[in-house]
Amino acid sequence: MTTPPGAPATMRAAVLHGVDDVRIEDVPVPPIGEHQVLVQVAAVGVCGSDVHYHRRGRIADFVVEEPMILGHEASGVIVTVGPAVAQERVGQRVSIEPQHPCRRCEFCRTGRYNLCPHMEFYATPPIHGAFAEYAVIDADFAHPIPEAMSWEAAALCEPLSVGVWACGKAGIGVGGSVLIAGAGPIGLIIAQTARALGASRVILSDPAPLRREAAQAAGFSEVLDPGAPATGGSAPGGTSPAQVDAFIDASGAEPAVRAGMRIVRPGGRVVLVGMGADEMTLPVSTILTREIVLTGVFRYASTWPTAIALVASGAVDLDSLVTAGFGLAEVERALEMATRPEHRKVLVLPSDLLTV
Amino acid sequence: MTTPPGAPATMRAAVLHGVDDVRIEDVPVPPIGEHQVLVQVAAVGVCGSDVHYHRRGRIADFVVEEPMILGHEASGVIVTVGPAVAQERVGQRVSIEPQHPCRRCEFCRTGRYNLCPHMEFYATPPIHGAFAEYAVIDADFAHPIPEAMSWEAAALCEPLSVGVWACGKAGIGVGGSVLIAGAGPIGLIIAQTARALGASRVILSDPAPLRREAAQAAGFSEVLDPGAPATGGSAPGGTSPAQVDAFIDASGAEPAVRAGMRIVRPGGRVVLVGMGADEMTLPVSTILTREIVLTGVFRYASTWPTAIALVASGAVDLDSLVTAGFGLAEVERALEMATRPEHRKVLVLPSDLLTV
Amino acid sequence: MTTPPGAPATMRAAVLHGVDDVRIEDVPVPPIGEHQVLVQVAAVGVCGSDVHYHRRGRIADFVVEEPMILGHEASGVIVTVGPAVAQERVGQRVSIEPQHPCRRCEFCRTGRYNLCPHMEFYATPPIHGAFAEYAVIDADFAHPIPEAMSWEAAALCEPLSVGVWACGKAGIGVGGSVLIAGAGPIGLIIAQTARALGASRVILSDPAPLRREAAQAAGFSEVLDPGAPATGGSAPGGTSPAQVDAFIDASGAEPAVRAGMRIVRPGGRVVLVGMGADEMTLPVSTILTREIVLTGVFRYASTWPTAIALVASGAVDLDSLVTAGFGLAEVERALEMATRPEHRKVLVLPSDLLTV
Amino acid sequence: MTTPPGAPATMRAAVLHGVDDVRIEDVPVPPIGEHQVLVQVAAVGVCGSDVHYHRRGRIADFVVEEPMILGHEASGVIVTVGPAVAQERVGQRVSIEPQHPCRRCEFCRTGRYNLCPHMEFYATPPIHGAFAEYAVIDADFAHPIPEAMSWEAAALCEPLSVGVWACGKAGIGVGGSVLIAGAGPIGLIIAQTARALGASRVILSDPAPLRREAAQAAGFSEVLDPGAPATGGSAPGGTSPAQVDAFIDASGAEPAVRAGMRIVRPGGRVVLVGMGADEMTLPVSTILTREIVLTGVFRYASTWPTAIALVASGAVDLDSLVTAGFGLAEVERALEMATRPEHRKVLVLPSDLLTV
Repeated sequence: MTTPPGAPATMRAAVLHGVDDVRIEDVPVPPIGEHQVLVQVAAVGVCGSDVHYHRRGRIADFVVEEPMILGHEASGVIVTVGPAVAQERVGQRVSIEPQHPCRRCEFCRTGRYNLCPHMEFYATPPIHGAFAEYAVIDADFAHPIPEAMSWEAAALCEPLSVGVWACGKAGIGVGGSVLIAGAGPIGLIIAQTARALGASRVILSDPAPLRREAAQAAGFSEVLDPGAPATGGSAPGGTSPAQVDAFIDASGAEPAVRAGMRIVRPGGRVVLVGMGADEMTLPVSTILTREIVLTGVFRYASTWPTAIALVASGAVDLDSLVTAGFGLAEVERALEMATRPEHRKVLVLPSDLLTV
Repeated sequence: MTTPPGAPATMRAAVLHGVDDVRIEDVPVPPIGEHQVLVQVAAVGVCGSDVHYHRRGRIADFVVEEPMILGHEASGVIVTVGPAVAQERVGQRVSIEPQHPCRRCEFCRTGRYNLCPHMEFYATPPIHGAFAEYAVIDADFAHPIPEAMSWEAAALCEPLSVGVWACGKAGIGVGGSVLIAGAGPIGLIIAQTARALGASRVILSDPAPLRREAAQAAGFSEVLDPGAPATGGSAPGGTSPAQVDAFIDASGAEPAVRAGMRIVRPGGRVVLVGMGADEMTLPVSTILTREIVLTGVFRYASTWPTAIALVASGAVDLDSLVTAGFGLAEVERALEMATRPEHRKVLVLPSDLLTV
Repeated sequence: MTTPPGAPATMRAAVLHGVDDVRIEDVPVPPIGEHQVLVQVAAVGVCGSDVHYHRRGRIADFVVEEPMILGHEASGVIVTVGPAVAQERVGQRVSIEPQHPCRRCEFCRTGRYNLCPHMEFYATPPIHGAFAEYAVIDADFAHPIPEAMSWEAAALCEPLSVGVWACGKAGIGVGGSVLIAGAGPIGLIIAQTARALGASRVILSDPAPLRREAAQAAGFSEVLDPGAPATGGSAPGGTSPAQVDAFIDASGAEPAVRAGMRIVRPGGRVVLVGMGADEMTLPVSTILTREIVLTGVFRYASTWPTAIALVASGAVDLDSLVTAGFGLAEVERALEMATRPEHRKVLVLPSDLLTV
Repeated sequence: MTTPPGAPATMRAAVLHGVDDVRIEDVPVPPIGEHQVLVQVAAVGVCGSDVHYHRRGRIADFVVEEPMILGHEASGVIVTVGPAVAQERVGQRVSIEPQHPCRRCEFCRTGRYNLCPHMEFYATPPIHGAFAEYAVIDADFAHPIPEAMSWEAAALCEPLSVGVWACGKAGIGVGGSVLIAGAGPIGLIIAQTARALGASRVILSDPAPLRREAAQAAGFSEVLDPGAPATGGSAPGGTSPAQVDAFIDASGAEPAVRAGMRIVRPGGRVVLVGMGADEMTLPVSTILTREIVLTGVFRYASTWPTAIALVASGAVDLDSLVTAGFGLAEVERALEMATRPEHRKVLVLPSDLLTV
């Protein structure tokens, strides 16, 4: 691997050196492999995991032990390609799928590459992410986007892919019903995805009034306060006790998961998206007597074509989720803003492709 | 519905009147419907749920409020048929699938009749079971058995169906690996089913030495004591930390479920069969980061053809599970024996088709 | 079964006595069974099979041997219910799923009731259909419709169900591509369904100019003339040789099927909807070397909830397909009009619920 | 890629130069890539495709234009490994999966790598096969075999993989029934696979008496002569008209496929394995009215673990299929013998790991 011709030798990047210690530095532009491309980064969404690494220096067993660049929801333009990649791809606008699987293990060979034990994922120690002017990705994980798609939406195809993956596992289809706990950015994206897939009834639940308002502003009429007194059923927030086909948790909160499991109908699905406590006390008798299927979402596999199609057709609107954008120098402020309830998606704009 | 011609007007039955109160009585032979058959009962397996109703008078929300006949693992011979049933079926030896679904709800129409909210199931209050000389069942739930199949095996096609259903949900196939917690009758039947489906590695785990011995006698070489000190891995009882494709719980014990979830490989399945505590504290982060699928077994649907084929081919041996048989008059003793670790399957033989 | 109280004793019906011999007669209102309802019929779509029975007296092995009422795409209002049906259903507006499966065979028990060998289907000899003031149907096959849905759309949920079933078998989803041969009513409905399910590219092909125009008027931009000279690929009508994920045949024409099979990508699906010749000469080497999956549609199972949801959400527009409506007395004219290329869906309006 | 240290520079190989022109030559040992291994070849099965290339110089669009080594059913021992492969693998006995997919296209990423458009497959022009002392393969496609497995069986895991793939597509499971047309080596292997997967009824059909005898000798009791007069049903060779769940064609003969399609039950599967005519005239009305699913087998994906487990457990016996073995010098004789009906599997033994 060599520094690609046509790319600069160094770039500006926001490097996390430790807890609460992000520094804007000049670092070498990373070399690209035979099947890889170098992308000039246009926009990067700030994710809760970025905030978590910034504040704690770790997530579960993943510990930041050496300087690392955060950011994994990214779009940009291809500026150089590896020798095995078609030269015509230079100049292509792409949405980055921030994964680098081994392609040789049993999981990769059977299409479940998100479970690859050798996965290298952006901004998961020690792999660098995209809060930088340039980023490297495998050519087939740099997904071309339609001309009309904004840099912002292209970046947010990453969280949309989580929504696509979650709705797939939840079996969402035309006429279905789903309860989603958590009306933060991921909850809203999942809700939009479910609606786009034809769900007739999409219910959101969140204890934060600002988030409930944002959900209603996004066109969801059934938005519940889980803390409100129930009015006649076992469901949260006073909804009717009627059952839903699926429950998707984007809150990570045990009470939300427990309440959600109880209103899923027999044979229905429960999908956990939000990372929360390592352990939860769950009503397992419900799993048995209703044959509920409970599973979780860990990244995604082969979701980009669906995500791009959902945005391209207008079925999902990502642009309206963006509430602020910051230049690379202001990454720390972006990380702080991202946690405030009045914000939905905050972006970092590392290069001059897109500016504040 | 009328008393069928050719059937006697009354029969001997073991009627549960309350906790620890089973009485042998003469009761009317039940009438049969248009699409039903009357079966003279040959053999009935004693299930843990029978014991539970006998000792406690209830299971979860199902309460014995009026006299009820227990027993739902039954075989016998058709003695009379309803007007819509072919007369030729009289004399047919059958294994009874003890379910009576509505056939009209959404679950029934889509093939998941075990989830029918209108289900009438043998020995689930207030529906009578088969500890009686005769029992009624829908004609298509009286499954004909090959000539060579014993009455005992035909009765035990019911717990085998649980095994078939569980292994199906666990995705057991050729070359797979599975850990089964609990080496009682259901655990042993699940293990035999998994082996018959081609699993290369079937591991059983049970704290009771007698049950571990029975498992070894049944040809399972990997039989673990979950209480034994681990020797280098997170798996129970000193097994290697290597992962299994699936974990099936036939114990209902929280520590077993927790240990099992931890050794299931990414993308693997966890299937709960054993009813235990209503709630369990589970490692949900494992579900998320490994995308494990957790579900439960509630009875079964369309499993009898598979169960009968497994017995007919010799792939599963049910006869060797039978450790005792009692006449109808000794039902209480049968219920008591069934809980002893030295017994595997105890049968009740209600008529003179099969005697002790 | 008895004549229901509250229903009249006789009704007007269009009875097919033989080839080209439809007579408007007073016939007894049919009795309803325990789980059935009597529906006053509002609207009935004319299907190609109705025309075929009228002109030929048979379709394949199904021969009209005694007088039969045609029509199987029907909507109406429930006027009486059988003793096992909730009395509250009287007055309910419904879309009729014109099937009466046995509910007891292996197919019914596993959710594939459309394959039931004992099926009784409207207007398939000797079962009466809905070109009459009243029709009988099982209560769970009388699907309630939303208040805003028109009688016309409710009737056309039947052909829409064919589209739902076909698109399901074709694996149509978000971002997919499909070629549909035949732009008659069924082709247009399948195309709308595919678009509603998220297909990014829906191509229609038809040799009739009027039908191609109708397809374009319905918003489909890629509409091909299969007779036009190809311009550079193996695909029909000059389209690019690029491959599609699925091909659905609604033409019954061998050349269309042959052309369609050739542009389906490896692993793609071919679904036959249109009845044509009993035999076709097909490129089987394509099936082998591309592992194409070829199957057919025979009615449908459990499609009504999806069909109703698609219409209710506005994703599919059935009303605009209706080009003419005729009273019961004009059934023969309706049958004639239905075959003209300038018509799409022609309706019969048998009662005063809806008039011309 | 470089000549691996520890491997010789040249090797003996049987090189096809043109129709009926195989020459035993000294050729360079092929270089291995980063993730590849060099295998000393022990045994190679002769396949019909080898014979076809030898006799005709082409199969469909695949034309032998430059000298090529035949043979793709191979076993052997790893003698050198690429730099990214664990050194411990040297000395490992392996069964070769003779595929080299790109791992980067949509098919590879979704687990259907057999459909990869960039596939390089042994003995498919211009890729060399294994009728040579050494062969190169990706490390993860060199599948370790148990100690007790013979070199012969390890080589024949390749055709067994075809059987596994075909039975998977045919939906063969416990208690099922299947008709297999063609009792040559592939037909016999498919039949064994179906039996091992639990099929209760495995029917073979072949016009050649010697093949029917071989089938009976392999323990299959229902072996039909398709030319025999039918005795009362539409099924071939006088079998009862009863339907089977699936039909697998290993004959490539149109009459066999037509007959097979007619006895598959509604909802059943038809799987084409045998390459024959490019086109066949098929009863498509059967596909429609029975919703039969027709598909084909093109190589396989992720089948080796299943194939190895079937052999290791004794469920499938490959050794007994071997009727002759020839040294490398006698490849032409092996190719000739392979077509004779008295032979089942003929092996080439290219090195001294296994000798005649």
